[in-house]
Amino acid sequence: MPRVSQDQLDARRQEILAASRACFARHGYEGATVRRLEEATGLSRGAIFHHFRDKDSLFLAVAEDDAAAMVETVARNGLVQVMRDLLAGALSPDTTGWLGTQLEVSRRLRTDPAFAKRWAERSAAVAEATRERLVRQREAGVLREDVPIAVLAQFLELAYDGLVLHLAMGRPAGDLGPVLDLVEEAVRRR
Amino acid sequence: MPRVSQDQLDARRQEILAASRACFARHGYEGATVRRLEEATGLSRGAIFHHFRDKDSLFLAVAEDDAAAMVETVARNGLVQVMRDLLAGALSPDTTGWLGTQLEVSRRLRTDPAFAKRWAERSAAVAEATRERLVRQREAGVLREDVPIAVLAQFLELAYDGLVLHLAMGRPAGDLGPVLDLVEEAVRRR
Repeated sequence: MPRVSQDQLDARRQEILAASRACFARHGYEGATVRRLEEATGLSRGAIFHHFRDKDSLFLAVAEDDAAAMVETVARNGLVQVMRDLLAGALSPDTTGWLGTQLEVSRRLRTDPAFAKRWAERSAAVAEATRERLVRQREAGVLREDVPIAVLAQFLELAYDGLVLHLAMGRPAGDLGPVLDLVEEAVRRR
Repeated sequence: MPRVSQDQLDARRQEILAASRACFARHGYEGATVRRLEEATGLSRGAIFHHFRDKDSLFLAVAEDDAAAMVETVARNGLVQVMRDLLAGALSPDTTGWLGTQLEVSRRLRTDPAFAKRWAERSAAVAEATRERLVRQREAGVLREDVPIAVLAQFLELAYDGLVLHLAMGRPAGDLGPVLDLVEEAVRRR
């Protein structure tokens, strides 16, 4: 039996995540059957579930992958920069479906505490990265002083959520640059 | 044949809208079959489609009903007040599903120009009410002068969308009051 390197395993894992994400976006959580996940990835269920325990775990891995990428950008450039990047690239057609799938899942969270817990940890990581960056910015003296960090962080997250929904609804993205300027200005020292 | 008064017709129409809204929220757009709409409303398809031409028209009527209620509140108290009301009442469990359904529909807009046009008119009414109220507020001297009305309106809409998504995702609503204060402050004269 040939040895498979860690790099090859990681690459395979990434391929499965990307194909599954598109499949969830197109068909929704329930609609993305194991059969469809096999078609989308070009792999057998055995191969898929060698990497991910079950469909729940696969879905959460996709969501965690998104969150990890976002945490990295937030830590480096802040949440407003994430929004500007989002605006510059607009969104792929799949993204509407992906948000729809996430909402589908959030309905389910009410009845599945274990799933809800893992999901909450995922959101918390982005919130934590946002807060940490704001703390560094306050130390650097660029942030307004009269509003607690927690409120500033939630304000930025609210704007981020708004942008995601705006784009997912298919509304025009063209003129939102000055709006993001206003968002950024609202948290800065005057 | 007994005469049916306009009041009775209007009341029946409202009953159909409320029951259909819940049905769309629970099952999604495609999943809300005519059979399920019959069960939800307690009426025959003949009775339902006496009031609404087809399922498309029924869905858009529900969405237009929402928009009309929102336009009224925006005109009277502004979009920030709509947000505060939303926060105070939190959201009914159905609202997650309803947002999911709207996203499902927005995917469809890409391939159905007639539907997309009616949908765009619906969103435009809320945007227009927001802008009109900001014009009156600028005349009253309470608004900042250095940012165009259009940008302020889009900023408020972004925050509104963010709040809707935040609540629909089931995140805690408890501490968003000070965040809305910050939103309101950002559009006001210093």
